[in-house]
Amino acid sequence: MAVGKDIDDLPKNAANYMALTPLWLLDRAAVVHPTRPSVVHGSRRYTWQDTYNRCRRLASALSNHSIGLGTTVAVIAPNVPAIYEAHFGVPMAGAVLNAVNIRLNAPAIAFLLGHSLAAVVMVDQEFFGLVEEVLKMLAEKSRSYKPPLLIVIGDENCDPNVLKYALGKGAIEYEKFLETGDPEFAWKPPEDEWQSIALGYTSGTTSSPKGVVLHHRGAYLMALGNPIIWGMNEGAIYLWTLPMFHCNGWCFPWTLAAVCGTSICLRQVTAKAIYSAIAKHSVTHFCAAPVVLNSIVNAPPEETILPLPHIVHAMTAGAAPPPSVLKAMSQKGFRVTHTYGLSETYGPSTVCVWKPEWDSLPLETQARLNARQGFRYVGLEGLDVVNTQTMQPIPADGTTIGEIVFRGNVVMKGYLKNPKANEEAFANGWYHSGDLAVKHPDGYIEIKDRSKDIIISGGENISSVEVENALYSHPAILEVSVVARPDERWGESPCAFVTLKPGIDKSDEKRLAEDIMKFSKSKMPAYWVPKSVIFGPLPKTATGKVQKHLLRAKAKELGPLEKSKL
Amino acid sequence: MAVGKDIDDLPKNAANYMALTPLWLLDRAAVVHPTRPSVVHGSRRYTWQDTYNRCRRLASALSNHSIGLGTTVAVIAPNVPAIYEAHFGVPMAGAVLNAVNIRLNAPAIAFLLGHSLAAVVMVDQEFFGLVEEVLKMLAEKSRSYKPPLLIVIGDENCDPNVLKYALGKGAIEYEKFLETGDPEFAWKPPEDEWQSIALGYTSGTTSSPKGVVLHHRGAYLMALGNPIIWGMNEGAIYLWTLPMFHCNGWCFPWTLAAVCGTSICLRQVTAKAIYSAIAKHSVTHFCAAPVVLNSIVNAPPEETILPLPHIVHAMTAGAAPPPSVLKAMSQKGFRVTHTYGLSETYGPSTVCVWKPEWDSLPLETQARLNARQGFRYVGLEGLDVVNTQTMQPIPADGTTIGEIVFRGNVVMKGYLKNPKANEEAFANGWYHSGDLAVKHPDGYIEIKDRSKDIIISGGENISSVEVENALYSHPAILEVSVVARPDERWGESPCAFVTLKPGIDKSDEKRLAEDIMKFSKSKMPAYWVPKSVIFGPLPKTATGKVQKHLLRAKAKELGPLEKSKL
Repeated sequence: MAVGKDIDDLPKNAANYMALTPLWLLDRAAVVHPTRPSVVHGSRRYTWQDTYNRCRRLASALSNHSIGLGTTVAVIAPNVPAIYEAHFGVPMAGAVLNAVNIRLNAPAIAFLLGHSLAAVVMVDQEFFGLVEEVLKMLAEKSRSYKPPLLIVIGDENCDPNVLKYALGKGAIEYEKFLETGDPEFAWKPPEDEWQSIALGYTSGTTSSPKGVVLHHRGAYLMALGNPIIWGMNEGAIYLWTLPMFHCNGWCFPWTLAAVCGTSICLRQVTAKAIYSAIAKHSVTHFCAAPVVLNSIVNAPPEETILPLPHIVHAMTAGAAPPPSVLKAMSQKGFRVTHTYGLSETYGPSTVCVWKPEWDSLPLETQARLNARQGFRYVGLEGLDVVNTQTMQPIPADGTTIGEIVFRGNVVMKGYLKNPKANEEAFANGWYHSGDLAVKHPDGYIEIKDRSKDIIISGGENISSVEVENALYSHPAILEVSVVARPDERWGESPCAFVTLKPGIDKSDEKRLAEDIMKFSKSKMPAYWVPKSVIFGPLPKTATGKVQKHLLRAKAKELGPLEKSKL
Repeated sequence: MAVGKDIDDLPKNAANYMALTPLWLLDRAAVVHPTRPSVVHGSRRYTWQDTYNRCRRLASALSNHSIGLGTTVAVIAPNVPAIYEAHFGVPMAGAVLNAVNIRLNAPAIAFLLGHSLAAVVMVDQEFFGLVEEVLKMLAEKSRSYKPPLLIVIGDENCDPNVLKYALGKGAIEYEKFLETGDPEFAWKPPEDEWQSIALGYTSGTTSSPKGVVLHHRGAYLMALGNPIIWGMNEGAIYLWTLPMFHCNGWCFPWTLAAVCGTSICLRQVTAKAIYSAIAKHSVTHFCAAPVVLNSIVNAPPEETILPLPHIVHAMTAGAAPPPSVLKAMSQKGFRVTHTYGLSETYGPSTVCVWKPEWDSLPLETQARLNARQGFRYVGLEGLDVVNTQTMQPIPADGTTIGEIVFRGNVVMKGYLKNPKANEEAFANGWYHSGDLAVKHPDGYIEIKDRSKDIIISGGENISSVEVENALYSHPAILEVSVVARPDERWGESPCAFVTLKPGIDKSDEKRLAEDIMKFSKSKMPAYWVPKSVIFGPLPKTATGKVQKHLLRAKAKELGPLEKSKL
């Protein structure tokens, strides 16, 4: 006896099935909180009704230019309202948003725009000169190059002459462009939730950037996963310290609509600006790479507003944050949620879940536990650390190293026009992160290194991250990055690139280096101790990730370390 | 120039696409919080690892009996751990859960089991006698009736002889049944997220119960929508006052897994038990019909633990809660979130969003505003109030009445084996609720009545809900329900059925009735004033909804009111 197929024989219809898309969340926010501030930028203040209307205007105006399915709209802008609006307006028109890293140079951007065939370029006035250069390069490269529709985003906080110049060059001003659109534009959800919503290029720590394609379904699920993971409730005040061009701001533009929160824009991310926004706007949440946390904890007292007037939640991801930074943040009253993910996983897709029993532990222990990458997000169905040869999970012993692999609905569709990379990335039914980690007995995973960052010395793996974490507790070190340096005896040996804290006497680098090495010996196995210490600023990507490939090149240039003795 | 189909030409693969199902949430909870309490029942206390293993055992044991795709598993139980586990174990086996209202009588349950062709019946020992009767009726009705696999859920808090009796009758004990299953059973997500997960029958305020079929996709989305709407964060302590058999406990079994919270079971829902659980288990959240809130606010002081030791969030839905009850809850320190929905919409799918600016309003005003049904849930894509003739939205004027219609991914698949009902329910691309409402200028919708509950007197609509809300402020009234009574002059006139508060002198009903009518005249238009007042207990469904059809029948029996004068 069974009910049989009757129980599943109920087809989808217009009332009970719709494509999942974060666009619904904006529509809802405008209905529920029409007068609540949605986006604040300097003296500009939009409500959710404003934002919804502006996004519909943008979609409508783009549609008037036949921008829709199968077209890419590039945005080159810092965290200003226009890039927030593009996260809704562009997909409302059916098109795909390509938010471009503003710290790239002209050749790099020319590569991206050539690859994505962007039909529209929306550019903040500050970057107009850069885009001019890019378009010139593209035109020179191909006679048949059809210039994109060029929209310049003016900003009353910037030089009006630059805007005037751009308009003289034939660009249309963003606000004027919006005026050509219908604020009641009848946007439609995608027919298929698998439709692409965004395209973002990997930061290029490898040779050629890859175009990560995300879909409406995943963006929606991530929009809901973020607040559940973070305990980010209705009406949160969110500060835009994380660039929206970086992996679509970890999907937070859409999350903000889900929780009907308020976005506080920020052109320039400095510790002073962050503290000031916390005081002025009662910011409750922000996301930032560890380097930003580092600048917050090291800010001179006159730039801070300590003690904090209310609890501020910081979500961090990117490089693993050094425990010393986590500890300092905690001491200052910030609650840090440590997450981890990649552009390929819609931003953070694991979280170091804070256990109530940690509350009573010493700050050092808390920071060490919280520096781990943790568990999968709600919304991600599979996360494991595997032996890449066998694809078998490694034991949860805290020492065996394997590769982190992902599986689920918040994993990218794939790389644009790159079948070979897709084949590698999706081998054996998992997405391969390229990050190496251990799994602890309590189930938390912890990154030990990127595959390519691991140092192999005398046949033994050295985690550059662990060496860095230990060095971060040295009182003179502000930032440190450790890479492999060729070594005649050991094959490779650790080489530390160090930025010193302000006020440290830098006159005797040799003595400082010796001191650091001596310090290291007390903190780590002898073969981990950096055999070279180099001082100076660290090269970084737009999102604050140290560009280890540049440091590796530099270490290589130094030449192999001669037969070192242990 | 456009990137064209390349941007969407990235197929689904095993790493980036999986069916959405709440089953993933249990798997995650067991990985993240293996030792945290998942379900507490008296002295029994399970961890998330226990619950996961027990659910897999259940799925495995069911699979051993060839229970899977296309089969229905009926559960007849109060809020005990087994019914919680069935919400995961049954779908893990691929089968469909049918949680049956325990307050139905044998013929009604026989109808349901005959309709759903339940292949398994899991029954709490307290209801074993009832099920025996049901199975006897089914066997008598058809000689070919194949009895279901009968599993009895023992409870150490109940009479051991009843359990012994059940086992003597050939039922297998639930714990023994679990032992036959594999705690590491390799369950699979459904291939298609549209697959059915649950079947629930409408409460039967209409003649024949309809079987509402829900799918994995909707259950998952609702599991995520609930905590976002309610601000229910990780680790919430949830008290099971709402029956899990009622619309799958509004999807909270799955929500609890999403937030890794703790379920506190409750066999008997009384105000005393609720207060006691709040004190003992530090309950943070519970859901309840307004009738339960009413009992909480009217509990004798010795049964309460006021003032509350911490904030307790109550979600209410079902009948619209009278503002006077909302006000009293608020005075006692409960935070009430008022939602509305139907079995057909996975439980609550609208919410009366609390606006910060309401905080400073008088309690009466707050309660009145919060008694409205509000806005659509995150997860629901469309909600409107329409003129059913034209399907056009009614104006947001607070007075024009239309029907509430729903559209989106948390709308049921349809009614089981009932094409005619499906056609009506899904007419014109919307799900028709049958509830009549207005839309206020601030966008909130407010129910005025069920279509069939509206009273039409002299051609004018009278909202029975509004008359009830006014009567609730009468000091002697504990509960009231107003229905239409045939009226020679006006066609219909309001008839109030009233339960008096304890301690009220009931000796002179005539005087009390007159007093209530006099009170009414000061509170509402003359034609709304009940022309008949009847005292006594109100007939209710298992979930505390007043069965107005029974009251209507009673009012009809009274005969038409003779030419009444106004």
